[in-house]
Amino acid sequence: MAGRSVAETGEFDVIGSIIEGLPSSPAVRVGPGDDCAVFAVDGDVAVSTDTMVENVHFRRAWSSADDVGRKAVAAAVADLEAMGARPVGLVMALTLPPELEVAWVSEFAVGVREECANAGVVLLGGDTTRGRDITATATVFGDLQGRPPVTRAGARPGDVVAVCGRLGWAAAGVTVLNRGFRSPRAVVVAHRVPEPPYGQGIVAQQAGATAMIDCSDGLLADLGHVARASGVAIDVHTSALDVAEPQSVVAAAVGGGDPLTFMLTGGDDHALLATFAPGDVPDGWQVIGVVIEGEPAVTVDGAAWQGEAGWQHF
Amino acid sequence: MAGRSVAETGEFDVIGSIIEGLPSSPAVRVGPGDDCAVFAVDGDVAVSTDTMVENVHFRRAWSSADDVGRKAVAAAVADLEAMGARPVGLVMALTLPPELEVAWVSEFAVGVREECANAGVVLLGGDTTRGRDITATATVFGDLQGRPPVTRAGARPGDVVAVCGRLGWAAAGVTVLNRGFRSPRAVVVAHRVPEPPYGQGIVAQQAGATAMIDCSDGLLADLGHVARASGVAIDVHTSALDVAEPQSVVAAAVGGGDPLTFMLTGGDDHALLATFAPGDVPDGWQVIGVVIEGEPAVTVDGAAWQGEAGWQHF
Repeated sequence: MAGRSVAETGEFDVIGSIIEGLPSSPAVRVGPGDDCAVFAVDGDVAVSTDTMVENVHFRRAWSSADDVGRKAVAAAVADLEAMGARPVGLVMALTLPPELEVAWVSEFAVGVREECANAGVVLLGGDTTRGRDITATATVFGDLQGRPPVTRAGARPGDVVAVCGRLGWAAAGVTVLNRGFRSPRAVVVAHRVPEPPYGQGIVAQQAGATAMIDCSDGLLADLGHVARASGVAIDVHTSALDVAEPQSVVAAAVGGGDPLTFMLTGGDDHALLATFAPGDVPDGWQVIGVVIEGEPAVTVDGAAWQGEAGWQHF
Repeated sequence: MAGRSVAETGEFDVIGSIIEGLPSSPAVRVGPGDDCAVFAVDGDVAVSTDTMVENVHFRRAWSSADDVGRKAVAAAVADLEAMGARPVGLVMALTLPPELEVAWVSEFAVGVREECANAGVVLLGGDTTRGRDITATATVFGDLQGRPPVTRAGARPGDVVAVCGRLGWAAAGVTVLNRGFRSPRAVVVAHRVPEPPYGQGIVAQQAGATAMIDCSDGLLADLGHVARASGVAIDVHTSALDVAEPQSVVAAAVGGGDPLTFMLTGGDDHALLATFAPGDVPDGWQVIGVVIEGEPAVTVDGAAWQGEAGWQHF
């Protein structure tokens, strides 16, 4: 039996189901429901916007609505972490097919709220409209509290490259799902809901990170962005990359491929990647490479990577 | 001869064509191209997000890409004006069909930049992804510079209702276009590119506006939002509504309908509607009604409006 659709429920009631009883915070001067939300900030503001589209970034057959809501928030907040900003607020713009069951939207909203609580952001408002694809655009704001932002452009020869969070789990999960399986469950769950290391962006900034980025396109692709922005070369040491057991299982299942490929090219786990002076690496971060002088490029154990590159959305 | 498509050009080059040579401002600490943009603000921050979807909010047969870009910015910034905020920045999330000609995107970007300049906001960054519909989500930020925001909730019995900007022009334009015509040109252009009264939001705030909203759903619908949020009744005086000549032309062309219907129910012109103590109405604003005690409702010349109501997106 099909539940009520978005079209049968009406726009205002759909919005109502999302914002009903939202938790607030002392920083919120005006919450959802007015022309704008208004919130207090401490220092400069960091902002990022991130869109997820059905059948491009998620499939309803693979992820629950709750998962999709959590992922939309996590992916966006990871960008705030990567600047060393303190996450503050989020607005969510939703495009919904009229025939979509409104229960999907309500469950999506539950996921959004859960992950906002995990990430320390307040859901400030949003917009809903109709379209053929489910599209969720999360725009997030943080504040710098008087600290300078950590850009991609500050890596210096002599720095080390360190990671906080997982590499290549979501990619292994997609590989499994593409083959029609649901296990190893750990990597499937990692695809559904990334786990950015919330709070570690500020930790890295305070430890003296010289450059930072979140790993969304894949380790080599994202370090390539840092290398180009900073005008440096980066070498990744595979001896420092610990292949996880489920990644080895998946690699073996797909014909004995190198599980390192997941770690080097798999995106969407939203680990944080940062460069530090060698003595500055904070607890919980693992050194995986070095910054060297040279034309902007990323090498693996001193040589160009011969495998697949990171993916583009088009 | 078809131009290059988005898919042939690639995501990074599409983004490059949008952000290339962007004007900046002293408030921008980090511009497009990093994980976040970073900008300075003065006081509390106002934020709003607004999505436009092809064939829901615009048609490529009716509007140029430049028009669509301008409209996406104007509609979003009008929400900042309606809070009395100073417009500061904008991020744009785009969903593009892979087969779309990249020239459409470039022209869209020209429109975005033009209207950002008109509105006084800086384009700070964005995101592009693929999807079946062209979808543009503009998220805008302003600052309050120490002033309180003007919400929908402050209207008091005894206040007058005033408007700054046009009512019902875009709706008349859609009526014309739906019938396959292109004139009167003035209302067609009004549908393509709204003209919010930039700067008048702060003027209204400083004059003592007690409540404010931008007119996007239609005069009666939007005053209904104010009435409910403020717990008051509002009466609109049709003697104060000046039907414009092109509106009369369109009403006559569609069979002698009442052109007032456009003014009372037509949205998307993004005029500002505000309530003031009778002596506080600033120059350039026209009094069109009064706030009275009573159950939240909007009447027209003392009676319920019998015509069509504002439209919902679903």
